Amino acid sequence: MTAERFRIGLLGHGTVGSAFDELLAQRAGHVEAITGLRPEISGVLTRSAGDFDEILAGCELVVELIGGLDPARDYVLRAMRAGRHVVTANKQLLSQHGEQLWATAREHDVQLRFEAAVAGVVPVIRVLQESLAGAHVERLHGIVNGTTNYILSEMARSGCSYDEALAGAQRLGYAEADPSEDVNGKDAAAKMAILARLAFDTPVHLDQVSYDGIEQITADDMAYAQELGLGLKLIGTAERIDGGLAVSVHPAFLYAGHPLASVHGPFNAVTVESEAITEITMSGPGAGGPQTASAVLGDVISAMIPPASTPETTQSLALVDDVESSFYLHMEVADRPGVLARVAQVLGDHGASIKSVVQKGLGENARLVMVVHPVLESRLFAAVEQIAALDFLRSPPRAIRVIDEQFV
Amino acid sequence: MTAERFRIGLLGHGTVGSAFDELLAQRAGHVEAITGLRPEISGVLTRSAGDFDEILAGCELVVELIGGLDPARDYVLRAMRAGRHVVTANKQLLSQHGEQLWATAREHDVQLRFEAAVAGVVPVIRVLQESLAGAHVERLHGIVNGTTNYILSEMARSGCSYDEALAGAQRLGYAEADPSEDVNGKDAAAKMAILARLAFDTPVHLDQVSYDGIEQITADDMAYAQELGLGLKLIGTAERIDGGLAVSVHPAFLYAGHPLASVHGPFNAVTVESEAITEITMSGPGAGGPQTASAVLGDVISAMIPPASTPETTQSLALVDDVESSFYLHMEVADRPGVLARVAQVLGDHGASIKSVVQKGLGENARLVMVVHPVLESRLFAAVEQIAALDFLRSPPRAIRVIDEQFV
Repeated sequence: MTAERFRIGLLGHGTVGSAFDELLAQRAGHVEAITGLRPEISGVLTRSAGDFDEILAGCELVVELIGGLDPARDYVLRAMRAGRHVVTANKQLLSQHGEQLWATAREHDVQLRFEAAVAGVVPVIRVLQESLAGAHVERLHGIVNGTTNYILSEMARSGCSYDEALAGAQRLGYAEADPSEDVNGKDAAAKMAILARLAFDTPVHLDQVSYDGIEQITADDMAYAQELGLGLKLIGTAERIDGGLAVSVHPAFLYAGHPLASVHGPFNAVTVESEAITEITMSGPGAGGPQTASAVLGDVISAMIPPASTPETTQSLALVDDVESSFYLHMEVADRPGVLARVAQVLGDHGASIKSVVQKGLGENARLVMVVHPVLESRLFAAVEQIAALDFLRSPPRAIRVIDEQFV
Repeated sequence: MTAERFRIGLLGHGTVGSAFDELLAQRAGHVEAITGLRPEISGVLTRSAGDFDEILAGCELVVELIGGLDPARDYVLRAMRAGRHVVTANKQLLSQHGEQLWATAREHDVQLRFEAAVAGVVPVIRVLQESLAGAHVERLHGIVNGTTNYILSEMARSGCSYDEALAGAQRLGYAEADPSEDVNGKDAAAKMAILARLAFDTPVHLDQVSYDGIEQITADDMAYAQELGLGLKLIGTAERIDGGLAVSVHPAFLYAGHPLASVHGPFNAVTVESEAITEITMSGPGAGGPQTASAVLGDVISAMIPPASTPETTQSLALVDDVESSFYLHMEVADRPGVLARVAQVLGDHGASIKSVVQKGLGENARLVMVVHPVLESRLFAAVEQIAALDFLRSPPRAIRVIDEQFV
């Protein structure tokens, strides 16, 4: 039996559009398994090819990845009026015409989803709209522009100037040839308007968000910040003040313990505070083709099925109980020649190689602490058992896993 | 016109149950505004009072906060078979009987939601089930037990022993009188079974999760970890290995740059990695009555309405554009007596008081950097304008906001 098709009209085929096309092709089997519907791109509109009306007529859902206000706004409105769900990544559109778009979605009983419009794949839209639908949010802080966070991270790391960091960001593709809307804070302001609307349940237009950017930040500010124990980030803030709401984007210094202070490079993060929830923080890549496409795909699946029916499992993976890990070893040994060599030999016999060692004398004994490179746990534990039996061991050795640096 | 009622049967009235009762009373008006339904607790079952069948007959949704396997399992199954949605915080139940419960929910077309079962208000369940429904997750790391994270954080911070830190956690209410299932890793293992089931779309039972705890960790291990630049946490890991899946909970050292390395105290956090999304991290309080109740409320609202229709705004908050902030000030001044006093006087005239100052000589000039306590932005900028006009200023002063420590 062939599953029913679910046809997606794709508007825009740039970085995110083509990444979505590719991701959907890879994940179509999985999406079919969990939704019972076979997703497919039924039409693509680019600047040079495709007809909007034809695409609309032949799809159940429109993915809008053109960006900008026109003609995106017209397409999105027409799609919803024709009863189509819409998934969009368009922050300009939502921060300036959001109320009209959301009203149209309600009126025509279609879904308008926009996770990818703010902080890429970081699920801040869904969490504000659904998980925190009942919360009385007090304050929200966000790093919602990856370009500026990359530039400031580089200035802090290397001590370079703003211009040098910007040039580096452009070389690596973290900043556009014309970076003005990123570095002057306007991009972040659009995203903060959307987040504030959802968190505080009140209309917020881009024009109501005051913002400034990072062009004036100097290497000097960074150096003093480090002296004062502060980090420097471009921070969006939305908070209740005297029964009203203040929404703004400014460079700001953060105390080292702030959850956003450790967000580096092109990552985005948002912290939501309320009395009942204390605070939650979400972080991850704020841009990038595959990452943004993943956010779009999550929205598309939600529009395909009513959520929260936990689907039947589609996999039956074997549960593996012997995995590779790096290890920390802690031993108390007699302080005599040849001890380290013997321990290293036993480890080597089991395929474990030493990455670093610290040895400390304790009178007649010594404490030997080492980190070994990744090795199958069963082999490491066999080595530890053999080491425990050596005559110069003064107490049972202890082994604790070390989680290696991320592949990020 | 009175809105239709939405009746909730509440099973259990301990810490979380009573916090939910209270939170719902506070937020009922808001929930009614966004859902069109007026939520109310229509019946409460405790050990000493209430009748399950009666409560079931008089509600649309059951919130199960009894915990443990029996009679919770029976109640949840009977509720779903009677066509009621269920919201539960019961990790034991889901990690051991999840497949039966989810199958029952599908069969009777009701929602079974369980955000509060893992990491409290941190929205990891919803994000895995919905935002990442289409993702091919490679690996998931979690700090999913707040008691052990608090103990390890305290050992790292103060250098105290495990026993001392545990006693402190018990005094502060972060550890129970009998903390064994927390400190031996079993509580975290149950949560990892649930997360792995959702992330990898394959059945995972608590019995398939290997775990050990933190009872063996010494102050010594902590000291060496710091020497090696590592942090020590109780980490749950679920990852694809050779076409299978490995799920475990162990104490583990993390490199300082790992997103979980900066999660301190009783907080929980989960990092999800996949090729397309790179990685996302969510963190927040993993326990606590109001926090867990907030997660339950988010689930209840989702069961009340089909999500992602962005509701009409229910507030019309005034947008405030002058707020209080702490500030960093950077000035280049002539290096002569009385300069600091004059600057301080101008600031004081505008209600700004100095928190810290760094002054550095630069030949004939000096650089003056200070942080001032929170003051209305308009007043601070007025002070800066006046300072800029002082004859000893060598270049325009710069003011950058400082975000103060969280209220957490």
